[in-house]
Amino acid sequence: MENIITSKDNPVIKLYQKLSSSKKERSEYGLFVLEGMRIAEDALKEDSGITHLLVTVSAREKAEELLLQADLRNAKIFVISNELGSRISSTGTTQGIFAICRIPVRRQIQFTENGRYIVLYGLQDPGNMGMIIRTADALGIDGLILSGSCDLYNPKVIRSTMGSVFRTRIMIENDTERLFALLKNGGAETAASVIDKNAESINSCGFTGCQAVFIGNEGSGLPKEISQRCDRRITIPMNGTINSLNAAMAAGIIMWELKK
Amino acid sequence: MENIITSKDNPVIKLYQKLSSSKKERSEYGLFVLEGMRIAEDALKEDSGITHLLVTVSAREKAEELLLQADLRNAKIFVISNELGSRISSTGTTQGIFAICRIPVRRQIQFTENGRYIVLYGLQDPGNMGMIIRTADALGIDGLILSGSCDLYNPKVIRSTMGSVFRTRIMIENDTERLFALLKNGGAETAASVIDKNAESINSCGFTGCQAVFIGNEGSGLPKEISQRCDRRITIPMNGTINSLNAAMAAGIIMWELKK
Repeated sequence: MENIITSKDNPVIKLYQKLSSSKKERSEYGLFVLEGMRIAEDALKEDSGITHLLVTVSAREKAEELLLQADLRNAKIFVISNELGSRISSTGTTQGIFAICRIPVRRQIQFTENGRYIVLYGLQDPGNMGMIIRTADALGIDGLILSGSCDLYNPKVIRSTMGSVFRTRIMIENDTERLFALLKNGGAETAASVIDKNAESINSCGFTGCQAVFIGNEGSGLPKEISQRCDRRITIPMNGTINSLNAAMAAGIIMWELKK
Repeated sequence: MENIITSKDNPVIKLYQKLSSSKKERSEYGLFVLEGMRIAEDALKEDSGITHLLVTVSAREKAEELLLQADLRNAKIFVISNELGSRISSTGTTQGIFAICRIPVRRQIQFTENGRYIVLYGLQDPGNMGMIIRTADALGIDGLILSGSCDLYNPKVIRSTMGSVFRTRIMIENDTERLFALLKNGGAETAASVIDKNAESINSCGFTGCQAVFIGNEGSGLPKEISQRCDRRITIPMNGTINSLNAAMAAGIIMWELKK
């Protein structure tokens, strides 16, 4: 008879939950989790790939092809009860498909002559980060650098990227000195996106050559010393009655202008 | 001694919760709810205004000015226990400020010669709707028309507009025939935003005169009969590896191009 995991104290279930809730555990194990059919398929295509695939009793049949592919790639496969699936899910209506994946060794970003890069500096909301990564992928941004921002492997980030996390070049550089050295060595002109009517409008500032645009924190924007340190300060011209777009939306409009 | 509401069975608390959870109740009462200091201040500036203001014991002191303004505008004011505040809040960390507001009698949109309008046709996610309204306000869109979309007064929509719901012209027209008649009478050229490489790129299609752009459902886009009925079909050119932006992000990029 087949083994179906039903206990919340099963070591794999406990591991999944630890990785889901704690950045520290993710770093220590070098693993993260994701949930859902589409994104699990995307993860399987990656070199780093899936180490453990968990499917509920109900999901098993429709996940047949996924299970076959995962088995071919040496993932460990577990069937869990529907109750456990609901328990470990981070969504209201779970598909019943869960994976533990290796955190890839992030490539350094290769700067190119006309490359377009985004630096997320102090961005804190996982939903915003996910949406920015998804948009960067759609618009063809050449790389993202995260600095002092929320954890890329937070399950909410992973979910809201809709798989783009696996298709986008992303590196993490939390040291400000090394970040600016990296951009300088890469030949990137740096621009701070700010809310300031005196900054250059993105309508007229012109983006030529290798460009890196900094996006700041949702509430407080970029620290002054960072925006001053950039080669220039750019802004999205806005209506008088409001002085802020959502950070992900602002990043999206800037990426659109960078790439068109 | 002052009366502090502590019971979840208090009629005002029950009303707040009914309005928070049910579109039907909102329509029947002609009331909706919101939560938070900033947005309550915005609501007070409106003609329709706040009918009931609820503050927790902890929030009372910092809400002093708001309470004064609400009192001057004949809102009924209630102090509630912190426990009740946590109970009725829809956020993790509540500010302890809650309001019941009248649903304004929506103005018809006035179409102007160079006006720029967005039609949300079948959009279902409250967070997306809120973000689109916020962005429309920031970029100066002249009006939004909701057709077969989620309820504008859903608390999640209201919250994610960040007060822009009070500054943006929004009308609701759920009848497709009347919607197209309205746009025609207003002199608007209609464009369906679609995911289709053969549609006109928003980089080159040109927006002149009175323009109304349709944004469709998150999962299925616009129904074919709607996109065919529009004067033209437009698209955001995208990277080969992904075929969809988030609906709010796509709407934001289109609004940016409409208004720049």
